[in-house]
Amino acid sequence: MINSPTSDRQWTFQSVMEYFAPDLKAIEEAIFANLRSRNELLEKIGTYITASGGKRLRPLLVVLCARMNGYQGRDHIALGNIVEYLHAATLLHDDVLDNATVRRGAPSANDSWGNHFAVLGGDFLYTSAFDLLLERFPRDIIRVLSRASLDMIEGEVLQRQWRGKTDIAEETYFEIISLKTASLISASCRAGSLLGGGDPEQAGRLADFGRSLGTAFQVIDDTLDYTADPDKLGKVLGGDLCQGTVTLPLIYLFQEGDLEPLRKEVTAAMAAGEVDNGTVKKITGLLHERGCGKRSMAKAAAHAEAAKEALHSFSDSPLYRALLSAADYIIHRSH
Amino acid sequence: MINSPTSDRQWTFQSVMEYFAPDLKAIEEAIFANLRSRNELLEKIGTYITASGGKRLRPLLVVLCARMNGYQGRDHIALGNIVEYLHAATLLHDDVLDNATVRRGAPSANDSWGNHFAVLGGDFLYTSAFDLLLERFPRDIIRVLSRASLDMIEGEVLQRQWRGKTDIAEETYFEIISLKTASLISASCRAGSLLGGGDPEQAGRLADFGRSLGTAFQVIDDTLDYTADPDKLGKVLGGDLCQGTVTLPLIYLFQEGDLEPLRKEVTAAMAAGEVDNGTVKKITGLLHERGCGKRSMAKAAAHAEAAKEALHSFSDSPLYRALLSAADYIIHRSH
Repeated sequence: MINSPTSDRQWTFQSVMEYFAPDLKAIEEAIFANLRSRNELLEKIGTYITASGGKRLRPLLVVLCARMNGYQGRDHIALGNIVEYLHAATLLHDDVLDNATVRRGAPSANDSWGNHFAVLGGDFLYTSAFDLLLERFPRDIIRVLSRASLDMIEGEVLQRQWRGKTDIAEETYFEIISLKTASLISASCRAGSLLGGGDPEQAGRLADFGRSLGTAFQVIDDTLDYTADPDKLGKVLGGDLCQGTVTLPLIYLFQEGDLEPLRKEVTAAMAAGEVDNGTVKKITGLLHERGCGKRSMAKAAAHAEAAKEALHSFSDSPLYRALLSAADYIIHRSH
Repeated sequence: MINSPTSDRQWTFQSVMEYFAPDLKAIEEAIFANLRSRNELLEKIGTYITASGGKRLRPLLVVLCARMNGYQGRDHIALGNIVEYLHAATLLHDDVLDNATVRRGAPSANDSWGNHFAVLGGDFLYTSAFDLLLERFPRDIIRVLSRASLDMIEGEVLQRQWRGKTDIAEETYFEIISLKTASLISASCRAGSLLGGGDPEQAGRLADFGRSLGTAFQVIDDTLDYTADPDKLGKVLGGDLCQGTVTLPLIYLFQEGDLEPLRKEVTAAMAAGEVDNGTVKKITGLLHERGCGKRSMAKAAAHAEAAKEALHSFSDSPLYRALLSAADYIIHRSH
């Protein structure tokens, strides 16, 4: 099937998704089939988190990178399932952590119950992912994902250490998002490539592509949290600000010398857990006024360019162009 | 070294510990050495949990089972370290879950901070364990520990599902402790044996030994929670009762027909999260009066006997007797 497109095929993201729909559907089915456990409630939480949407970006990258060398096997289905489990596991644990911070009042019994199952559900997804890997994948692929898991945890811890600190350096911010977001996206590309018969050098270039793409993806996400149309974003603006997570647009804003008093004010509000709507509006307005949202988006675009650069040495092929089109889609979403 | 003891050597637990002290010390050092991470705080929580004591039962079983066939390698050190990481990871996550339940009031900022690092610290220990496994261990050993990890999570979930339910069947209780406690103890024996060159059949018998020993261990732990000398136990009695965890002594107590009104009363108190000191004292007294503590201990002794039975087919050897002596020690602790 993968050999059928003519070499001058032009992709849109839509046509990529349609072309690979059978693979993506098989991954979706595997995600649910592998959640069958002796334990009904555990199954529920897995179903909840995996059904709760998401773009399945990581499975898509696994599929595209595995297919790059004309891979005709079926293990990319399990691998796509596995990277989504790893992603969902971190989401579940992050949710537990965020709830504990944001809600400073007494948790309801229901919240506690939810937290229990989020901790254990994350543990279950994580353990299941490694169990599936051990079932049939070569060690180099398992290690790629094991390393990415360690990176994600370190990134999460580092982010929490820097929470509320408005003097965080731009480099530290990029270190955090590289560990927390880009590492699994990069690992999905590398693992997919290795599975599909890519040599370590090719897999490495695809990993570089994923690293830059993941970085661009997260910078955009962080910028949209201030600049998006709230209706399109599907959540209120300024979530990171309220949580004390200092991201790139805010770092840029506080580089403006005349805003030092505001920086101190915001730092104090974050420390007190009292960032109110007024503060969010003021910051959002200033970000727009001073062009910090635009500056962030330009930085994201530079990382997206770097992602494409990483693919340059590949000979032009339908899969190469499918990857570029997926990258373009990811970068141009929601704005 | 392991070949030096004469075949009629008689062990005490003390002499086992002394004889294997170099191995156990090397494991202890590995535990700390492998916690070095780029992230200082992550390192701290690992140090905290691993330094917080514990009997290092699982590493000891790894050492004894690996040495059984005269293993002279060094990988049992890393394996001992790994099983302790897996154990510590579940302790950390259990703590998060228990805190959320027991403290119904607002968590202080400090508690939240602690919970963050407990969730992430557990994730880190768990991920590190698998990363170390992937570094040098054969797949069959990795899978033994991966399966045990899945079992532990299922056991924890099952236990929480049954929390507050005083009509839990004895079989369900044993299923829970088999998954939650005995599985990793059993896996430590099996993995140690496989590492030391044991064939699957020998490893299987050692796994059976560990399964029964772990079950006895947990029944004793659960019984001591009602019957111990509080000074020796180092914590207040009735902790499980207050948390709503229904263990074997209580199951036996509520099998007494005339206590049905009390059972309903306790069930209601558990549901309300209001098990007070008076209830604990009343239950503790009745358990003593009706011989339910003794009955639980007899059940534990039966599992301990089964553990020893599993070793019967082994030819008498110093290591065989060292295992028996470790089992005896574990079973006779604190009472």
